[in-house]
Amino acid sequence: MPANIGYATPDASSPLAPLEFDRSPVGPEDVLIDIRYCGVCHSDVHQARDEFDGALATTFPCMPGHEIVGIVAETGSAVTQHSIGDRVGVGCLVYWGAEDQRGGTDEQYQNPPAVFTYNAPDPRTGEMAFGGYSDQIVVNEHFVLRIPDSLPLEKAAPLLCAGVTTWSPLRRWNVGAGQVVGVAGIGGLGHMAIQLAKARGAEKVIALTTTPDKKDEILRLGADEVLVMSDEEDAETHAASLDFLLSTIPTPFDMNPYLALVKTGGTLATVGMLEPSLPGAIDFGPVTMRRITIGASLIGNIAETQEVLDFCAEHGITADVQVIPVQQINEAYDQMVAKNVLFRFVIDNATLRTAGA
Amino acid sequence: MPANIGYATPDASSPLAPLEFDRSPVGPEDVLIDIRYCGVCHSDVHQARDEFDGALATTFPCMPGHEIVGIVAETGSAVTQHSIGDRVGVGCLVYWGAEDQRGGTDEQYQNPPAVFTYNAPDPRTGEMAFGGYSDQIVVNEHFVLRIPDSLPLEKAAPLLCAGVTTWSPLRRWNVGAGQVVGVAGIGGLGHMAIQLAKARGAEKVIALTTTPDKKDEILRLGADEVLVMSDEEDAETHAASLDFLLSTIPTPFDMNPYLALVKTGGTLATVGMLEPSLPGAIDFGPVTMRRITIGASLIGNIAETQEVLDFCAEHGITADVQVIPVQQINEAYDQMVAKNVLFRFVIDNATLRTAGA
Repeated sequence: MPANIGYATPDASSPLAPLEFDRSPVGPEDVLIDIRYCGVCHSDVHQARDEFDGALATTFPCMPGHEIVGIVAETGSAVTQHSIGDRVGVGCLVYWGAEDQRGGTDEQYQNPPAVFTYNAPDPRTGEMAFGGYSDQIVVNEHFVLRIPDSLPLEKAAPLLCAGVTTWSPLRRWNVGAGQVVGVAGIGGLGHMAIQLAKARGAEKVIALTTTPDKKDEILRLGADEVLVMSDEEDAETHAASLDFLLSTIPTPFDMNPYLALVKTGGTLATVGMLEPSLPGAIDFGPVTMRRITIGASLIGNIAETQEVLDFCAEHGITADVQVIPVQQINEAYDQMVAKNVLFRFVIDNATLRTAGA
Repeated sequence: MPANIGYATPDASSPLAPLEFDRSPVGPEDVLIDIRYCGVCHSDVHQARDEFDGALATTFPCMPGHEIVGIVAETGSAVTQHSIGDRVGVGCLVYWGAEDQRGGTDEQYQNPPAVFTYNAPDPRTGEMAFGGYSDQIVVNEHFVLRIPDSLPLEKAAPLLCAGVTTWSPLRRWNVGAGQVVGVAGIGGLGHMAIQLAKARGAEKVIALTTTPDKKDEILRLGADEVLVMSDEEDAETHAASLDFLLSTIPTPFDMNPYLALVKTGGTLATVGMLEPSLPGAIDFGPVTMRRITIGASLIGNIAETQEVLDFCAEHGITADVQVIPVQQINEAYDQMVAKNVLFRFVIDNATLRTAGA
């Protein structure tokens, strides 16, 4: 009988359901983790439903999950950074992609990149790796993060993807004191970005949303203002006012109304958007006339992931989560697509072996 | 009888023809310049033919020209930086847009911006200013540049727009030593960018062109390689190889094949492109997966303009020009649109009062 259990989908249109399997053995540099919680990322939905193209097309069965927190259960003979019983986390990366890429600072941008946590071939077995919707995971110790004691595990889980994905551009573009910062798309990533930008000292954080009924919840996160993008008058008032606009919108969207909010010399950075900016091409008239920079980035590196965990502990920041039993994952997916979540679903992985609440 | 003469067009479809007019009087801070040469910029064609939208729509009659070199003929009572007989230049800007914007470092990005050299209201008269296809011009001294003695005037003219427009992003993005730099669109701007990038110490400069018959001329400018964009195999060989790609393409184009050439962490900067990136939206898949930055900028500021003039003098760089009598301006426009110029037409303004060769 297989030793492990998780939730996976056999094809793009079926719901996720229990799947028994075996994790690969713990190698010398590996850490075995008993998973306690796993955040549910919007890219899990895209991947399970095979909505990405090209290199990211889904191999089935697909077991998502890359916002993983748990407790170290076993360590390989060469492991030096982690001990049994440690509170740890795993994000989107689990192994070096190749020996000659070891030590690269931006693990996700190496050639080949580090191995993604699921829907990528496990370099030891050649089989597609399974993610964190499971009871255990085996990870190279370089990719295992320390969870500071002050962070509750379930509220730390989303920092491993949503947290670092928004942290990375805020840090790289040196966003902070004296700046007016916009955050577009107030879901799992956006709700972290609001808190992180405030804690970095932004003068004002303006949340841009298409979901006006979330307004009170968004203000509670620390946003100074909420701009409803469908309100043209409101958008006009905010024209050319943002030093930095971080878009966390995960689906194709028209960037032009967002670019209109960026001030001269400012930047729009997009994360988590892997498709064309449809409908509508980007109009380089205003972009050029105001010297706007458009940036993009993919998750964050391992050092940045530890950094955002430590920063959140220092500043008392956590994700706003709705803990669910794994049996509710399919309903959760539908609610996410309908933008009906405050702000991140997190699976209680204990429910894999017990009926959920 | 009016004192001045220039070439202007009465509407979007007529050829340019002689027009007599009067320059405004020389104010205390103004410099009167006898124009010797004026470069012919691709945006002159766009403007004369009313091909820009919105704020840049053309008011007729339109007298283009913003690559102006000449000799100081008269100075206002408060002028301190320039003297009669000085070799001087004027680029795209001629006056402060408003008193409270004086002293702004990036004159072109102030609110309101500095006044453009033509097709912008002269703040002293309210009338549309006339550009450098004329015998004289009156300019606030802040916007008058010194032309180093070693630069021949006719070969310096294109530095005032083409030179500084490409210099500004090379400088802002710190392009230089050890980098592989691409330059897309090898016309007036691109042929300056190749020379400037080489002189800044780029390891390799690759010219990207859709005009393969210019190859020998492009190599003569100092490019290390010429990549013909229609050659898919050649483009594939250069995939993800450029640290920095400067696009000088002045008309809507599909950015995706150009973005494919930029390496992880690299930048594509566009100048002179004021329209949507048609056909085709930008695909943010590869942009995100390789953390590419897309920049854009509008000409350069006054300090950068003096800087590029001095840099060119120091490094022996000039524009490759074809000097024409003003009577050939309409044919020159057609040749530019057909990409049939090596690499910049420059008007000999003496021909305004004498028949050209």
